[in-house]
Amino acid sequence: MRAVDIITKKRDGGILSKEEISFLIKGYVDGEVKDYQLSAWAMAVFFKGMTAIETAALTECMLKSGSVIDLSGIQGPFVDKHSTGGVGDKTSLILAPLIASLGIKVPMMSGRALGHTGGTLDKLESIPGYRTSLSVDEFRSIIQKDGFAMTGQTKEIVPADRLLYALRDVSGTVESIPLITASILSKKVAEGTEGLVLDVKYGSGAFMKNAELAEALAQSLVDTGSALGLKVVALLTNMEEPLGYKVGNFLEIEECLDCLEASYLDKAGKDSLSKDMMEVTLELASHMAVLGDKAANAQEGRKLCEDALKSGKPMELFLQNVKSQGGNPEEMQKMRGQYRSKITAEIFAAKDAYISRIDALKVGQASVLLGVGRNKSDDEVSPQAGVEFHALSGKYVKAGEKIMTVWARDEKGLNSALGGLQDAVSYSDKAPEAAKLILKEVRKSPK
Amino acid sequence: MRAVDIITKKRDGGILSKEEISFLIKGYVDGEVKDYQLSAWAMAVFFKGMTAIETAALTECMLKSGSVIDLSGIQGPFVDKHSTGGVGDKTSLILAPLIASLGIKVPMMSGRALGHTGGTLDKLESIPGYRTSLSVDEFRSIIQKDGFAMTGQTKEIVPADRLLYALRDVSGTVESIPLITASILSKKVAEGTEGLVLDVKYGSGAFMKNAELAEALAQSLVDTGSALGLKVVALLTNMEEPLGYKVGNFLEIEECLDCLEASYLDKAGKDSLSKDMMEVTLELASHMAVLGDKAANAQEGRKLCEDALKSGKPMELFLQNVKSQGGNPEEMQKMRGQYRSKITAEIFAAKDAYISRIDALKVGQASVLLGVGRNKSDDEVSPQAGVEFHALSGKYVKAGEKIMTVWARDEKGLNSALGGLQDAVSYSDKAPEAAKLILKEVRKSPK
Repeated sequence: MRAVDIITKKRDGGILSKEEISFLIKGYVDGEVKDYQLSAWAMAVFFKGMTAIETAALTECMLKSGSVIDLSGIQGPFVDKHSTGGVGDKTSLILAPLIASLGIKVPMMSGRALGHTGGTLDKLESIPGYRTSLSVDEFRSIIQKDGFAMTGQTKEIVPADRLLYALRDVSGTVESIPLITASILSKKVAEGTEGLVLDVKYGSGAFMKNAELAEALAQSLVDTGSALGLKVVALLTNMEEPLGYKVGNFLEIEECLDCLEASYLDKAGKDSLSKDMMEVTLELASHMAVLGDKAANAQEGRKLCEDALKSGKPMELFLQNVKSQGGNPEEMQKMRGQYRSKITAEIFAAKDAYISRIDALKVGQASVLLGVGRNKSDDEVSPQAGVEFHALSGKYVKAGEKIMTVWARDEKGLNSALGGLQDAVSYSDKAPEAAKLILKEVRKSPK
Repeated sequence: MRAVDIITKKRDGGILSKEEISFLIKGYVDGEVKDYQLSAWAMAVFFKGMTAIETAALTECMLKSGSVIDLSGIQGPFVDKHSTGGVGDKTSLILAPLIASLGIKVPMMSGRALGHTGGTLDKLESIPGYRTSLSVDEFRSIIQKDGFAMTGQTKEIVPADRLLYALRDVSGTVESIPLITASILSKKVAEGTEGLVLDVKYGSGAFMKNAELAEALAQSLVDTGSALGLKVVALLTNMEEPLGYKVGNFLEIEECLDCLEASYLDKAGKDSLSKDMMEVTLELASHMAVLGDKAANAQEGRKLCEDALKSGKPMELFLQNVKSQGGNPEEMQKMRGQYRSKITAEIFAAKDAYISRIDALKVGQASVLLGVGRNKSDDEVSPQAGVEFHALSGKYVKAGEKIMTVWARDEKGLNSALGGLQDAVSYSDKAPEAAKLILKEVRKSPK
C-alpha cells in the first residue's frame, strides 16, 4: 500500500477501505505518511467527501491512535452534549448538573475559546481554584460522586485529532464535513459516552454560516455516530445573535448560576434576558433525558427538566462540583456581580428604536479584543472581561439608554472593541419578528 | 499575506493574483511556505484549475526561481520541440540536426526515462563518451557551431520545478493541467527558445490516456506559452503503439541514424518500419520550420525538411554533434547492429493472422524490466537493452514467425519482461484500419 495511491483514489472519487484509511492515519501518527501527503488527502476529501462508512472508519482509526476513558464500574447511563461553538453559549454549564440531577451521568470533555467562539474550560477556570485538567481517575471518581465532571482533553485522548487538526488549520482543509465529523466524534467516543445530543449551530456566530451547511454537518454527525453505536440526535440551533445576555468567562458563570437557581422558572425568569439561552438549554436537556431513558419523548423530557430545575437540585450539584474540582463555592457566590475588570465602558442606544439585531460574530470578535477569547491557542484569556447586555433584540430603547456594559483586560483592547460592539447592534422602527431558535431535529438517515 | 488564505481562495474557486502565486512559490523555495501547504494547494488546483493568466504567472514565478540561459550573441531564430513522452519516441534526435540544417538554432534541454516512457538523455548517453551535462558556455558554443546542442537541465534551471514536481509525485497531484503546463513551459523558456512545437501525445503509452485530455493540455500549453511571448503550436499525436520499430537506448540511436541517412526518402525508407515515426517527425519538423520563419506554412515546411533530409546535411550535423559533445562518431558507426546485451530472446507470432495492435504501455513497462528505463529517478539504465520489432500493426504474420528480438540487462529482467511483450501484441483475422497518427493541430484560443 502506498499513500500516494490512496490519495489518488480519493481524488478520483473512490471510496476508501477501512485498511486504506487506517494506513493513512496510523502512518501519519507514526511518521511514515508525511504531512504533505495527509494535507493533499484532506483537500481531496474536501472536494470528494466520504460516505458515512468511511467517516466512521476514519473516526475509529483516530480513536485508536490514543486511549479511551474506561467508565466501567460506574452506573450509567452516560449522555453528553456537544456544540459546534457559539457566542454566549453557556448551555453546557447548566446541562451537566441538570442532567446529572435526573440520574444520568455526564462525562463532559470540553474545549477552549478559539477565534470568536467561547470555551467551556475558560469559563470554568474563571472560578478561582477550579481545575479542568483532571486525571482519568479524578474524572471517574467525580462523575461517580457528583454525576458529572468537566475536564479538558488529555494528551492521551485521540492524538491523531490534534495532529490532523493542526495540519488542517494551516492547509485550508478545516471546512470538510467528514473531517469535522471524525474530529468531533472521535473525542466524544473516547470520553466514554453512550448517548450524545449535538447542538449544531448556524448563523453569523456559528462555524456553519447557513442552515443548509449546518444540516449537512448534523446529518453526517448523526449518521456516523449511529454507525459507531452511539445513541445520537442533533438540533439545528440559531447562532445569529449571542445566547443569553452575558458574554465573558466569569460573566457567563454568573448567568448560569442565576438560571440554575430554583427561582428561574417560578418568577420573572421566563421573561429574563436569559430566556432564549434557557430555551435552547431546555430543548437540548429534553433530548438528553430521552437518550438517557428517563423520558419517552422530548415533551416528557422537557417537563422532567423543568421540574428538576425548580427543585434546586442542579444548583446543589453545580456547587458540589465546583468544590470537587478545586474551587470554593462560597467564594464564588460572593464574587457574583463583583468580579470585574476595572477597565470598563458603557454603550448607549443610538436612537429611539427597536433593537432589531445583535450580530453574534461581531460580538464574538469584539470579545476576543476584550480578552474573553483568543486568536492563537496559546493566548491567555481574562476571567474578568466581557460584555453584559442590558437590552436584547426586540426591545424598544430610547436614545442614550444604556444597552451594554463592557469590561476589558486592558485599555487597548477596550478601545479596539467598542466600535465593533456598537456596530453589532442594528435598529428598526418596527418591532422585529422573533427568530426561530431551534430550526429542526436531525435524526439518522433511513437505510 | 498567509499561505492558508491563498489555498482557501483557490479551493473556493478564486483566481489568484500574480502576487499570491509568487508568495506561494517563492515562499516554498525559501522554506517559508511549507510542503504540506503547497501539496494542499496543488490538490485544490487539481480540482479548480487555473486560468491561462494564472498559469503564465505560475510559470514566470517558477522561472524566476533559477537562472535562464542567455543565448544573446548567437544568431537565431531559436526553435525547440517538447514531447509529453512516449514509447519509442526518438523524434528529438532527428529533429535537432534536421532543423539546424535549415539554419534554425535548436537549444534542446531534454529529460530522462521515467516509468514506461523513454528519455532522450539516456539514449544519447548510450553513445560512448557522449556528455549530456554541458556547462552553459558549452551549450552556447555547441549551438553556435553545430546549430543545436542537447543537454540535461542544470540545477540552476527552475529549481522550483524540481521541488514542486517531487512533491506532486508523492501527493497525488501530478495530473493537473496547469501544473503540468507550468512545469513544461518554465523549463522551455529557461533554455532560451523563442519558438516551440509541442508534441502532446494521447493513448495507452502517453501520459494523457485520451485525446480530450491531451487536447486540454495542448490548449493550456499553447495559450500559456503565447501569454509568455513564445511562438507556439501543438500537435496531438497518437501514442497507442510504439513509434518506430526499435525501443531501447542505443537501439533508438540506430533507428535515428538509419532515418537520417540520405537514402531514407529515396529508396525503401518510406515503406520501412520507421514510416510512422518519420511521419510524426516530419510533421513536427514542418511546424518548426514555420516557427523559425523558413517556410510560410506547414506544406512548404514539409517540402523543405524532406529536401534537407535527402541532402544528407542532417546526418553530417548529427555526427558533428556527437563529436562536439564528447562521443566518437566513427566508433558509434561501427557499433550499429552490434552493440547489444548478450542476454537475449526472440518472440514469435502466436498464429497466422494480422497484427492488429501493439500496446505501447505494455511495451514501455516491459522495457523498464529489460533495463531500458527506470522506475525511480536514481535507477541506472542499460545502453544495450531493448526490443526490436520485425513486424508492426497491419502486417500479416505466420504462426512461428519472429516478430521481436529482445535484449535485457539481466536474466531476471528478461524473464519478467517476456510475458508483457507477448501480451502487448493483439491479432485479428482482418487487416486493421491504419490509425490516425496526427489527430489535430492546436493553436492559441481566440481572445
